[in-house]
Amino acid sequence: MEQLFVIKIGGNVIDDTNSLNFFLKDFAAISAKKILVHGGGKIATKIGEQLGIQSNYVQGRRITDEATIDLVTMVYGGLVNKKIVAKLQSLQCNAIGLTGADANIIPAIKRPVKDIDYGFVGDITKEKMAVMNLEILLNNNFTMVVAPLTHDGNGQMLNTNADTIASSLAVALSESYYVRLIYCFEKKGVLENVEEDHSVISLITREKYQQLLIDKKLFDGILPKIDNAFAAISSGVKEVLIGDANDLLQNVTSNTKGTLIK
Amino acid sequence: MEQLFVIKIGGNVIDDTNSLNFFLKDFAAISAKKILVHGGGKIATKIGEQLGIQSNYVQGRRITDEATIDLVTMVYGGLVNKKIVAKLQSLQCNAIGLTGADANIIPAIKRPVKDIDYGFVGDITKEKMAVMNLEILLNNNFTMVVAPLTHDGNGQMLNTNADTIASSLAVALSESYYVRLIYCFEKKGVLENVEEDHSVISLITREKYQQLLIDKKLFDGILPKIDNAFAAISSGVKEVLIGDANDLLQNVTSNTKGTLIK
Repeated sequence: MEQLFVIKIGGNVIDDTNSLNFFLKDFAAISAKKILVHGGGKIATKIGEQLGIQSNYVQGRRITDEATIDLVTMVYGGLVNKKIVAKLQSLQCNAIGLTGADANIIPAIKRPVKDIDYGFVGDITKEKMAVMNLEILLNNNFTMVVAPLTHDGNGQMLNTNADTIASSLAVALSESYYVRLIYCFEKKGVLENVEEDHSVISLITREKYQQLLIDKKLFDGILPKIDNAFAAISSGVKEVLIGDANDLLQNVTSNTKGTLIK
Repeated sequence: MEQLFVIKIGGNVIDDTNSLNFFLKDFAAISAKKILVHGGGKIATKIGEQLGIQSNYVQGRRITDEATIDLVTMVYGGLVNKKIVAKLQSLQCNAIGLTGADANIIPAIKRPVKDIDYGFVGDITKEKMAVMNLEILLNNNFTMVVAPLTHDGNGQMLNTNADTIASSLAVALSESYYVRLIYCFEKKGVLENVEEDHSVISLITREKYQQLLIDKKLFDGILPKIDNAFAAISSGVKEVLIGDANDLLQNVTSNTKGTLIK
């Protein structure tokens, strides 16, 4: 099976032009097939404030109202996505920027209203993903740059978490490719001691994870990430790497830095 | 040769949700291969005003400064483009939204400064267009929806006139396809009497054009459009149709409405 990297970057990379350019240079240099998924960063909040769009929270959860879905469609799907695409093209990487609506790559349904109405938030309908279109683009050496947006199939754009977009793409393509899913975040990896940046656990298997849970070595915020990683692996992804953007891409084919989960 | 329609819509369609939806329904129903090029409409100006971005004019020409290129990248490349894509997907049209940076389909150079510095405006470098990428997308039945944006190959997005984007795409693909270039605008076609909406000239050949010029029958504003049409035809486009969006698509394969230039 041919290798495919699905790499997700968030605000800590996107919001800093130097970090972003440094990352994109490493990303463009990966010779294997690759997909980049980006979050939004702080720029959407900043532009939203300038436009007088209030951030709405209910029970601590952000609500995507009509003004907000237009805002993130502009900022994530337009400004952030196209800046990345133009930069990658300048590095001879044949980038093509997409949302989940483009080529119908990531259809979703508006999250059903239970206790909270999240508004225009999309839950991905994995069985409807246009895997054939993804494969056509990959096979023709396009490097997809994917914004954290989906659509409902009835003409409505929806806001979807970038981590979820990345794992859905990784899972959807795992039948055809040997997929490594890479989450770049603000830490060097999963830490045995959250106070100690260099206490990176280099490999987590299911057995190791159980032991770490028993030993209460992991900080709370990391548990969902590891759970998501194992969920992706259960669905066909070969391995998940978590760590710092710049570390990870310097040795993207090995795993000397960050935490490898398999 | 297989037929290809390259259709350009402007503000008068984009700014009115009913007109846009009506147009997109007709567009989606075209069974031949097709590309949609859209302008920006008034929404960019409105959002620009809310963001405190001044429209800058020098000698009556709009200048694209740094804030403005970010604005149009957001609004044209994000908001307008993705709304159209999501709507077309809901109509079973496999739309994929692109700027000139995506897949490097329309490279450009920043317009050289002579009397006026236009700022981040791109003049298309036709000989560098990634025609192969355009053909891959067309041959795989993706319907490209193209925003009026290009890039300079060094990481900078550029603002480019939608009419020019449409004619450049039409010309670039005229070696492989029988291309009809369609400009939708606010009138029913080229009018013999500008005061009379129904005085549409149904066919303009070069000979007819010379005669119309001699007879001074044409209003000034239409001359550049006709000149551009003949320039496209000289470069390989088979025919150019000019007229009202809704009229044109109702009979897109014939020419019973609007003005056909060939």
